[in-house]
Amino acid sequence: MSEYIEHDKSGVSVGIVEKKFYKFAYPPKEMMLESGLKFGPITIAYETYGKLNANKDNAILVLHALSGDSHAAGYYSETDLKPGWWDIMIGPGKGIDTEKYFVICSNILGSCMGSSGPSSINPETEKPYGLNFPLVTIGDIVKSQKILLDYLGIEKLLSVVGGSVGGMQVLEWTLAYPDMVLSAIPLATTTRHSALAIAFNEVARQSIMVDPAWNKGDYYFTSKPALGLAVARMIGHITYLSDAAMRSKFGRRLQDKDDFSFNFDIDFQVESYLHYQGKKFVDRFDANSFLYITKAADYFDLEKQHGDGSIVQAFSKSKAKFLIVSFTSDWLYPTYQSKSIVQALKKNGLDVSFCEIEAECGHDAFLLPIERLSSLIKGFLERVYDELVK
Amino acid sequence: MSEYIEHDKSGVSVGIVEKKFYKFAYPPKEMMLESGLKFGPITIAYETYGKLNANKDNAILVLHALSGDSHAAGYYSETDLKPGWWDIMIGPGKGIDTEKYFVICSNILGSCMGSSGPSSINPETEKPYGLNFPLVTIGDIVKSQKILLDYLGIEKLLSVVGGSVGGMQVLEWTLAYPDMVLSAIPLATTTRHSALAIAFNEVARQSIMVDPAWNKGDYYFTSKPALGLAVARMIGHITYLSDAAMRSKFGRRLQDKDDFSFNFDIDFQVESYLHYQGKKFVDRFDANSFLYITKAADYFDLEKQHGDGSIVQAFSKSKAKFLIVSFTSDWLYPTYQSKSIVQALKKNGLDVSFCEIEAECGHDAFLLPIERLSSLIKGFLERVYDELVK
Repeated sequence: MSEYIEHDKSGVSVGIVEKKFYKFAYPPKEMMLESGLKFGPITIAYETYGKLNANKDNAILVLHALSGDSHAAGYYSETDLKPGWWDIMIGPGKGIDTEKYFVICSNILGSCMGSSGPSSINPETEKPYGLNFPLVTIGDIVKSQKILLDYLGIEKLLSVVGGSVGGMQVLEWTLAYPDMVLSAIPLATTTRHSALAIAFNEVARQSIMVDPAWNKGDYYFTSKPALGLAVARMIGHITYLSDAAMRSKFGRRLQDKDDFSFNFDIDFQVESYLHYQGKKFVDRFDANSFLYITKAADYFDLEKQHGDGSIVQAFSKSKAKFLIVSFTSDWLYPTYQSKSIVQALKKNGLDVSFCEIEAECGHDAFLLPIERLSSLIKGFLERVYDELVK
Repeated sequence: MSEYIEHDKSGVSVGIVEKKFYKFAYPPKEMMLESGLKFGPITIAYETYGKLNANKDNAILVLHALSGDSHAAGYYSETDLKPGWWDIMIGPGKGIDTEKYFVICSNILGSCMGSSGPSSINPETEKPYGLNFPLVTIGDIVKSQKILLDYLGIEKLLSVVGGSVGGMQVLEWTLAYPDMVLSAIPLATTTRHSALAIAFNEVARQSIMVDPAWNKGDYYFTSKPALGLAVARMIGHITYLSDAAMRSKFGRRLQDKDDFSFNFDIDFQVESYLHYQGKKFVDRFDANSFLYITKAADYFDLEKQHGDGSIVQAFSKSKAKFLIVSFTSDWLYPTYQSKSIVQALKKNGLDVSFCEIEAECGHDAFLLPIERLSSLIKGFLERVYDELVK
């Protein structure tokens, strides 16, 4: 979601970074999935920024959203034009200060950015898995991150941070590994998708699956379902913005013309924007991964999976301090959903800070350069480090 | 949009009705379109309910929305299971009382329910027009309705009534033929689409146009773009409901299963609902008509077309009394859009009543059996008739 964001190029960057890969196989390290299937070998792509200190108490895990990757900050080379997707937040002196903290970001299981997913090669057939890749859940994704941290020798996380689907992983971390997570920063997220969010995801999935090129997920040696995936992304982008943001960003302005075309070409700027986003996404993302990750998000139900249907019971497992942030114009995961998390945490006597940030840019706000967000995260991390670690 | 509505079967109906057709050709009656093209011959399908009185002062024009038709009330036969789409509102003793008023409803130009549209036969080629049918606007649609009324000998309309795209036609009527319209009832509508509404329409259009079966609109002798049209309708249905309506209607309930499928089948009830709506729409509606009518709705810009960009200036032409109704949970045409109409009418010193009805069912509320809406319309029509006609 970060591609149309103006990055803060004036800021100091973590500099040149490298994507690394960790491969684990079963046996000996089995990955038992929530569906009941066992799966492996599994590769996890990850990057790190800053240095792990001697006490290993300054590690922060950053979790990305639907279409993100492990490249959260810095540049791959001197000539690289674009930094990682959250470079505005992660770096020396930034909200997540790499002078103080050791930051890890890994690509999620099911994605197509280096970690195992439907476009990975199945060693048994030497062809991409396609739909033979198992359905993975947010729980499975978090479990694979835990295996990566074990490998890196990290036993405590000062914080887990992420927005949207990344925020779901944050919440899952606090319940799956409560002893490991000192603090958690879920942004613009929810404990479970509303019917509206499921509806949008299902329509987006359908737009891919009705594209004949999709071919039941088996398209890696033919042509990819570019048209269907573009429509899916267009649907997504509508939900990432807001009525107000679209009004001020596009209004009813026409694209490169003075009057209507009186045909079915692009007339309005908002149409042009959506087409552009759709096409750009097709170049960088795998349609099957879109299906897998949206399904994982729809399946996520923290109340059901951890609390027998009760959000209060679910969070009774957690021991973390929380900073929860929502955005006024986010209609995909509206503030009332964040507030229900806050209430449940308070009922469990947990340390929780909550802020609803005034922003007209919709769900995507968490990826934008909002000074208030950076300073909130910075202050929270400093407090947690002082209280828990020092 | 009316297909999943529970009709009030206990109510009195207008009984058996008949669809009629009026065909006009140019010359002598030219239809000059807003695009600058001339077009004809044109057929308009229409129905009437009640009786035109001797003074011809009791005529009400009912205008349908995107996928509606001329069959607004009554049944086509004794064995017909479903009445017209607004049978809850139109009939003896109902909100629009056919004992008192003469009601006309015609299918809009560009549709596929009897009036001329892209699926009609082009007399020159003896094949369906497809994309050779000209783009029509809300202004063109209203102009064709005016020709029908001329044919029926109706010179004054006691009221024009309609919701959504029908409401746009209502607004257009009050400005295009101000001397003919005594009162107007625009429901759940807007003077121009927001960028958000255009965005949804464009994505829906794209889902049709990327379906290879669409074949640039030329599919009437092959197979229709059923998959793309179904996705388009699914997108539409999301916008017709609301977060709250979906939550209470579906929540996260699963469809005919106790646990997730862990594949890409339907899991949730909301998914099943959308699939059902999509498939049903394909059986009854033409994909090209969907393209034409959504484009007409996107092009509608009352401020620009009648007021040089000013809504106040635009409504200075109108002489009608207004009843404007919006619904709290309508996020496609939110209340603020109705309120801007109310303000512009007031600034022009016009007689305007406004009501925002509390309803959680979203944009589609205007089609639902809401007692408050019926009584508002009934009372307003009685007052207008008393003040203006008697």
